Amino acid sequence: MAMYTISRRIQNGSSTVVVSRFATSLNLRYATSFREERDTFGPILVPSDKYWGAQTQRSLQNFEIGGERERMPEPIIQAFGTLKKCAAKVNLEYGLDPTIGKAIIQAAQEVADGKLNDHFPLVVWQTGSGTQSNMNANEVIANRAAEILGRKCGDKFVHPNDHVNRSQSSNDTFPTVMHIAAALEINSRLIPNLKTLYNTLDSKSIEFGDIVKIGRTHTQDATPLTLGQEFSGYTTQVKYGIDRIVCTLPRLYQLAQGGTAVGTGLNTKKGFDVKIANAVAEETGLPFVTAENKFEALAAHDAFVEASGALNTVATSLMKIANDIRLLGSGPRCGLGELILPENEPGSSIMPGKVNPTQCEALTMVCAQVMGNHVAITVGGSNGHFELNVFKPLIANGLLHSVRLLGDASASFEKNCVRGIQANRERIAKLLHESLMLVTSLNPKIGYDNAAAVAKTAHKEGCTLKEAALKLGVLSSEEFDTLVVPEKMIGPSD
Amino acid sequence: MAMYTISRRIQNGSSTVVVSRFATSLNLRYATSFREERDTFGPILVPSDKYWGAQTQRSLQNFEIGGERERMPEPIIQAFGTLKKCAAKVNLEYGLDPTIGKAIIQAAQEVADGKLNDHFPLVVWQTGSGTQSNMNANEVIANRAAEILGRKCGDKFVHPNDHVNRSQSSNDTFPTVMHIAAALEINSRLIPNLKTLYNTLDSKSIEFGDIVKIGRTHTQDATPLTLGQEFSGYTTQVKYGIDRIVCTLPRLYQLAQGGTAVGTGLNTKKGFDVKIANAVAEETGLPFVTAENKFEALAAHDAFVEASGALNTVATSLMKIANDIRLLGSGPRCGLGELILPENEPGSSIMPGKVNPTQCEALTMVCAQVMGNHVAITVGGSNGHFELNVFKPLIANGLLHSVRLLGDASASFEKNCVRGIQANRERIAKLLHESLMLVTSLNPKIGYDNAAAVAKTAHKEGCTLKEAALKLGVLSSEEFDTLVVPEKMIGPSD
Amino acid sequence: MAMYTISRRIQNGSSTVVVSRFATSLNLRYATSFREERDTFGPILVPSDKYWGAQTQRSLQNFEIGGERERMPEPIIQAFGTLKKCAAKVNLEYGLDPTIGKAIIQAAQEVADGKLNDHFPLVVWQTGSGTQSNMNANEVIANRAAEILGRKCGDKFVHPNDHVNRSQSSNDTFPTVMHIAAALEINSRLIPNLKTLYNTLDSKSIEFGDIVKIGRTHTQDATPLTLGQEFSGYTTQVKYGIDRIVCTLPRLYQLAQGGTAVGTGLNTKKGFDVKIANAVAEETGLPFVTAENKFEALAAHDAFVEASGALNTVATSLMKIANDIRLLGSGPRCGLGELILPENEPGSSIMPGKVNPTQCEALTMVCAQVMGNHVAITVGGSNGHFELNVFKPLIANGLLHSVRLLGDASASFEKNCVRGIQANRERIAKLLHESLMLVTSLNPKIGYDNAAAVAKTAHKEGCTLKEAALKLGVLSSEEFDTLVVPEKMIGPSD
Amino acid sequence: MAMYTISRRIQNGSSTVVVSRFATSLNLRYATSFREERDTFGPILVPSDKYWGAQTQRSLQNFEIGGERERMPEPIIQAFGTLKKCAAKVNLEYGLDPTIGKAIIQAAQEVADGKLNDHFPLVVWQTGSGTQSNMNANEVIANRAAEILGRKCGDKFVHPNDHVNRSQSSNDTFPTVMHIAAALEINSRLIPNLKTLYNTLDSKSIEFGDIVKIGRTHTQDATPLTLGQEFSGYTTQVKYGIDRIVCTLPRLYQLAQGGTAVGTGLNTKKGFDVKIANAVAEETGLPFVTAENKFEALAAHDAFVEASGALNTVATSLMKIANDIRLLGSGPRCGLGELILPENEPGSSIMPGKVNPTQCEALTMVCAQVMGNHVAITVGGSNGHFELNVFKPLIANGLLHSVRLLGDASASFEKNCVRGIQANRERIAKLLHESLMLVTSLNPKIGYDNAAAVAKTAHKEGCTLKEAALKLGVLSSEEFDTLVVPEKMIGPSD
Repeated sequence: MAMYTISRRIQNGSSTVVVSRFATSLNLRYATSFREERDTFGPILVPSDKYWGAQTQRSLQNFEIGGERERMPEPIIQAFGTLKKCAAKVNLEYGLDPTIGKAIIQAAQEVADGKLNDHFPLVVWQTGSGTQSNMNANEVIANRAAEILGRKCGDKFVHPNDHVNRSQSSNDTFPTVMHIAAALEINSRLIPNLKTLYNTLDSKSIEFGDIVKIGRTHTQDATPLTLGQEFSGYTTQVKYGIDRIVCTLPRLYQLAQGGTAVGTGLNTKKGFDVKIANAVAEETGLPFVTAENKFEALAAHDAFVEASGALNTVATSLMKIANDIRLLGSGPRCGLGELILPENEPGSSIMPGKVNPTQCEALTMVCAQVMGNHVAITVGGSNGHFELNVFKPLIANGLLHSVRLLGDASASFEKNCVRGIQANRERIAKLLHESLMLVTSLNPKIGYDNAAAVAKTAHKEGCTLKEAALKLGVLSSEEFDTLVVPEKMIGPSD
Repeated sequence: MAMYTISRRIQNGSSTVVVSRFATSLNLRYATSFREERDTFGPILVPSDKYWGAQTQRSLQNFEIGGERERMPEPIIQAFGTLKKCAAKVNLEYGLDPTIGKAIIQAAQEVADGKLNDHFPLVVWQTGSGTQSNMNANEVIANRAAEILGRKCGDKFVHPNDHVNRSQSSNDTFPTVMHIAAALEINSRLIPNLKTLYNTLDSKSIEFGDIVKIGRTHTQDATPLTLGQEFSGYTTQVKYGIDRIVCTLPRLYQLAQGGTAVGTGLNTKKGFDVKIANAVAEETGLPFVTAENKFEALAAHDAFVEASGALNTVATSLMKIANDIRLLGSGPRCGLGELILPENEPGSSIMPGKVNPTQCEALTMVCAQVMGNHVAITVGGSNGHFELNVFKPLIANGLLHSVRLLGDASASFEKNCVRGIQANRERIAKLLHESLMLVTSLNPKIGYDNAAAVAKTAHKEGCTLKEAALKLGVLSSEEFDTLVVPEKMIGPSD
Repeated sequence: MAMYTISRRIQNGSSTVVVSRFATSLNLRYATSFREERDTFGPILVPSDKYWGAQTQRSLQNFEIGGERERMPEPIIQAFGTLKKCAAKVNLEYGLDPTIGKAIIQAAQEVADGKLNDHFPLVVWQTGSGTQSNMNANEVIANRAAEILGRKCGDKFVHPNDHVNRSQSSNDTFPTVMHIAAALEINSRLIPNLKTLYNTLDSKSIEFGDIVKIGRTHTQDATPLTLGQEFSGYTTQVKYGIDRIVCTLPRLYQLAQGGTAVGTGLNTKKGFDVKIANAVAEETGLPFVTAENKFEALAAHDAFVEASGALNTVATSLMKIANDIRLLGSGPRCGLGELILPENEPGSSIMPGKVNPTQCEALTMVCAQVMGNHVAITVGGSNGHFELNVFKPLIANGLLHSVRLLGDASASFEKNCVRGIQANRERIAKLLHESLMLVTSLNPKIGYDNAAAVAKTAHKEGCTLKEAALKLGVLSSEEFDTLVVPEKMIGPSD
Repeated sequence: MAMYTISRRIQNGSSTVVVSRFATSLNLRYATSFREERDTFGPILVPSDKYWGAQTQRSLQNFEIGGERERMPEPIIQAFGTLKKCAAKVNLEYGLDPTIGKAIIQAAQEVADGKLNDHFPLVVWQTGSGTQSNMNANEVIANRAAEILGRKCGDKFVHPNDHVNRSQSSNDTFPTVMHIAAALEINSRLIPNLKTLYNTLDSKSIEFGDIVKIGRTHTQDATPLTLGQEFSGYTTQVKYGIDRIVCTLPRLYQLAQGGTAVGTGLNTKKGFDVKIANAVAEETGLPFVTAENKFEALAAHDAFVEASGALNTVATSLMKIANDIRLLGSGPRCGLGELILPENEPGSSIMPGKVNPTQCEALTMVCAQVMGNHVAITVGGSNGHFELNVFKPLIANGLLHSVRLLGDASASFEKNCVRGIQANRERIAKLLHESLMLVTSLNPKIGYDNAAAVAKTAHKEGCTLKEAALKLGVLSSEEFDTLVVPEKMIGPSD
């Protein structure tokens, strides 16, 4: 991180500007002027054009892990904006200076709107309570609020701790923004995209309702069903997936805010927790409530492990669906070839008709990552000690990563694949009629033994069932055509 | 497996009886006489004293994987009894011969009661549809029903397929027994045991309600809370864990039965699926219903992946609780020593007072296994193809293993540990009053700078806060005692 | 567990004999007479016909988790036999009474031979150091040795601690038996079975060396290769799998014995650790050595996490191979149909030719379980504290489970599937020649644009490349036959 | 992604410039002018200031998954530079036009140097073969080479396929760059950082060699050891961790290049594979060789699953070490307090002496993520089909993420924590001498029963062992001091 390197060398008295390779690659402009900020450790230089303060700067120096792409996810940053705005509102009721309060509200709104994302440089791999990101939010909002009020950055006219963080602790704010960010991302990104996927699968299921095809169990030929029935299984998986996620929301809607350092609510006034949950609910339009037990809310993140479990199930479902679609679309000549997938990019410069199921591939890779993130979240969730789980940034990052990937990949899969799937009716019909298992429907007429003889003959001689039946003389061509009707094999009988 | 080895050698014309090492260790008595059973592959010898038939015997020979301890779990076997009984009842409505039907019902009840467990020798690692265990159930019930009717085993007077398996397929029976077994085990074993654990934790939380103790965040000293508050976090985790499991039950109550081979219900009559779900519901007292989409119910086991996700969350919670308890109980002299754990066995022949937290150890090992099983179930659940997921026995076994272990370990932990936990009030008080963070309550009186000076002096000189305060002359002994009252630091202020 | 229930009720003064359902189902004969054993907690009744003593009995009562099938794995029990025999040998050098020493050696040999497995009733889910299983071994060997010497069980003439456990602690014996058991199972079961699988795959690769077939990438038709080349990929995966496992053995060959309670070797004599490692090496024929750092050897089980990682990789390989084989064998009419898999059991009573790839299914289920066990082992391995990791039984059980399942399933897969695989040469040839990608070889002759036109025409009209080429008039029938030779497309050119 | 959005709107005839939120936050400058590029799908607009071409642009539009932070990792991009340079070198030997070849070499070198990272916008979640990133590399190098030669971007004077990708396929290049990138990152980042950590731990182990302290097993007081011995366990874990990683390198050094589309090497000349592996080895200084079986090298990524297993083991080790250090450093008053950790940032504005173990927290979070990534890699690795595994970008990204995080976090942990750890000798001595287990050393003198009585008295009355011994009159003060010498309890006796 360029900022770090630069400020540090200057601190050491050296004027050499060292440009790290990651800075280069990510287009960060380099700071050329600095101001001094202070915390209880003393003074430290920070880039002049950034709102962050001393504690953020220290974290940059102490946690050089992973580089730019490991920054705290933006939904967390923006949820900090929402929370700090709500905290200022409630603190106004409890005596916060209105001038300062209003400036905080304005600055926090800018954070909530994503306008100050560049001022949040810290990575996920920091203090396990997310303290440094909370201080990053406090520092940025304090300095921006000071600026709004015509003051200088760093003069602490608006104080990061006393004003912005008033009645709060990192230990309750970070779990609160985790819940806000997760609930928002799930409601605004994941569920809508899954619903769109559901709708498209459902319309495909209806569109394909009359196409009778061979069923496959154990990957082997089995009795028939319609392609619409096959897709209805996928539809149901996605529908239940949405249900599963929704089931976990009540516990995600519980906010830790008001628990402060260890869950007791020390340094808050009675009622603060309920008021702030109400404020967040109003601000976001989601039914947040104060957590009924703040000790659990700080010391454990079971709600995230649970929600990740729902995502893991959705990943399982989507892996199955995408695998089926790529196998049913395999070919064009030497695979199953029942589906025609949309062609979005050149498959090969040589082979026309080679449509690689690239959307299935991206989606299944995403599913694998979601399964992996789930294990990371589980490990982090199980390793809390006493009054605080200190795997918070890992857990938040993992869940938000999974939500984002599943949401985006579902949308991409729907738009660039499912929506354009066509049935290869000719191929489907050919396979269906070549199948030997249609012999089943002869049993009532000619008996199991004769039916088996027909099937065995067809298999051995590589001919059709009808040819075998006629050869064996067990029924006439007309009888065969009357009896062997796949369309009658796709449901229970009356 | 002794049976296999013996029957095989005899088939090969050799009379040598080979006794496998696993047979020895598990007290299996060795078959000394055999009868012939048949299937479409021809005749095969099975032990005279067993009800199973040819297909079971073949599976024994073809899947020598893992030995006795890998047998299909008993809840699955017994659920087969329940299902086959219900199927016979419904089939009687659809024309099954009443004599045969009643005998099947009687035999199936014996399976449901666990009386014929010895006749189910097959391991989990078999056909992925569980076909061979379904046939095992069909064969055992058919032969036992025949015996009830005075017929000989193997004469197929009661036919395993035509009578016992009537209107069924392995592909719908196995998922059905998976759901029956899981729902029963969860309701009869896991949830009651978790509720007992919840109640005991809750009563401890009340019992410890007046014990103020040091809080710990980042494993470091923090502001105080009561031991009761600390336990209330555990209580809440377990309570929510029960909620989480209950949330997944609606999808476990859906039965695949009636879908037959590929989900279409071919070879059933309309209404069969609803009737059999009703029969199972009546038989078990649980609200089973027919699955709204049979294609999903055969091709995916998302309901199990979801339920396993809930168990994974419970494991996460219990890992945290057990870790806390063993650390809080660490000592007796050189650890935290706040809790006194019951002593259930000699810890050491030398060190009196060394109580190893063995119940915590057993429980946390169980939690780790549940996390591992969850990954196995997820992998299995994501790998279905087309109309059938063929990881069914793995998935069933994994979930039932997790349910059993969590249920049993929760009970053991409650009975042998939590119930007997005592607070070491003296030690708790000592630590609390040595703590430096109580200085926080001096801030309003003497200001932050003086308070900090007090704390720093105490830390540097290794004395108490009071000693430091008096030394610095910032307040009197009486003032100190009035201001530093941990009991006032355990909640929000009015 | 019947033993427990019975003895407990008697202790409570009640004579009611309660038979648990698990006892019933597992053919345990019920104890009807008891003797008294003692430990520092006082007297306790144990079944007269068992060699175990008081501490084993207490563990039975305190850890009712999972039932019979959760017993400590037999390789661990038998490794205890080996270790205790070696310890007695070395202790004889250090002054152990020769009469007692010889009796211990004889009794321990019986344990090593598996003759006393019935006397090891404890489950995996016990003390995390495996202390209770170590005491189980000490007690059984002491009582059996006493019996050999004509003494009574329980009289401690041969003392479980002072004699059998001399110079040992649970904390070093349990990791030692973990390593012995794992190394033996890997060397005697897993590696030989993988080698057999390798050989069979290799011979198939040679057998199929001349069969040119369509390649598939992204599940789509691609350029050709031979079926032998395709199998050579599997062969290489298995070969490297063996290499991977072998790479982990040096760390498994390190024995903790001699570290005693915390790794310092307190209560041993200098040189004891080296002597006992030598004795175990001699006894087992494997190159065991004393661990270079005993602190690591007690406090961590990284060697098991590492070995499990190798098994996880093998599971990944086998999953891929088994998936390919079932898909290549799919059909018989509506799948890929390139391989003919052996038919081991009736696939269906209706459909001749339906060969379910049941061995692939069992193997892939095993692979999923191995992946799950790996996570359980990782979680357990990462949660050690201070001088002792207390997830030892979980870790040992998980690894041995994975080794056993992979070893057995590889053997079953080799014997019942791979060995009998036949190529469906006719089908393979048909698919190959229908494929459009053979057009690639026309590029040099007729140019890319003409070649593309040929392929597009063939794809659009559903005809062969040759038909398309002739129709477009770009070359003659003879030219086509000369140029389109898949056999020339299976390697680099000269 | 801004590029995508802008170009697309323009294509649709709308001139509205839409700025996505992610573009904003990541400082991407917006393209304001475009040029046309073409592929077989036709023309498409790309930003004028970027070297990428049509296929890259299409991928940007078709895979809007995850945003900027999901870009293909830079080590992959730079490895593409290395590979393409080597390919051009070898192709020159096989007839590639020298002018073009040299320009490619120069352009590829710029990619290898990371100078063109901004021209690689594609995300991980794309085609599972990495085809689009290969084309991205081909397009960027072709256009940059053209520019070097004074030509225009997009005129294909240097052709991305015919020249840059000559004798290559995505299917062999992507696995090749995976191996190059992983081997380089492991050798240049991970192993050196682990070695530094090893050295620092080792020097601490020596520094603390004379500090005798209480041991802890089951988290309970046990017999003593030195703090140096305790640290030697950590040292050994890290040393073996390095060994474990090194063990996997031989399989990572195998390159797939030369296998082309399906592993046969079609369209290469004999010897190409060996030459290119030699060129890469020369270029990187690492002992790369051509893969002995190209079918395995394309269809499986077992080498990555294996390497990830080694990283998973290292994560397990580091989790244990970091957990120990934070617990041993817990306090300052109410924890174990044996270690004094360096203070890097304000722990709390109130509590002096509160040093949060933030480096331990960052490291353990990293370990959890590595465990999660390992599962993702395993799932991806197990799901290959036929001639190609199509989870390549997921697998590459996961492994490189784990390598980066472990490498960086090890360095941060070493520099900001381990290096500055001090022993709290006073506290260690106090705990040691309060411990009851020192009684062990009285056994030989006063007998077990008397020793036990001493310990029990001390425990019951809360006094020291010495006080209890004197009170019971079993030995004199001098005798006690002679016998109870913890320094003699830290090793085997002579």
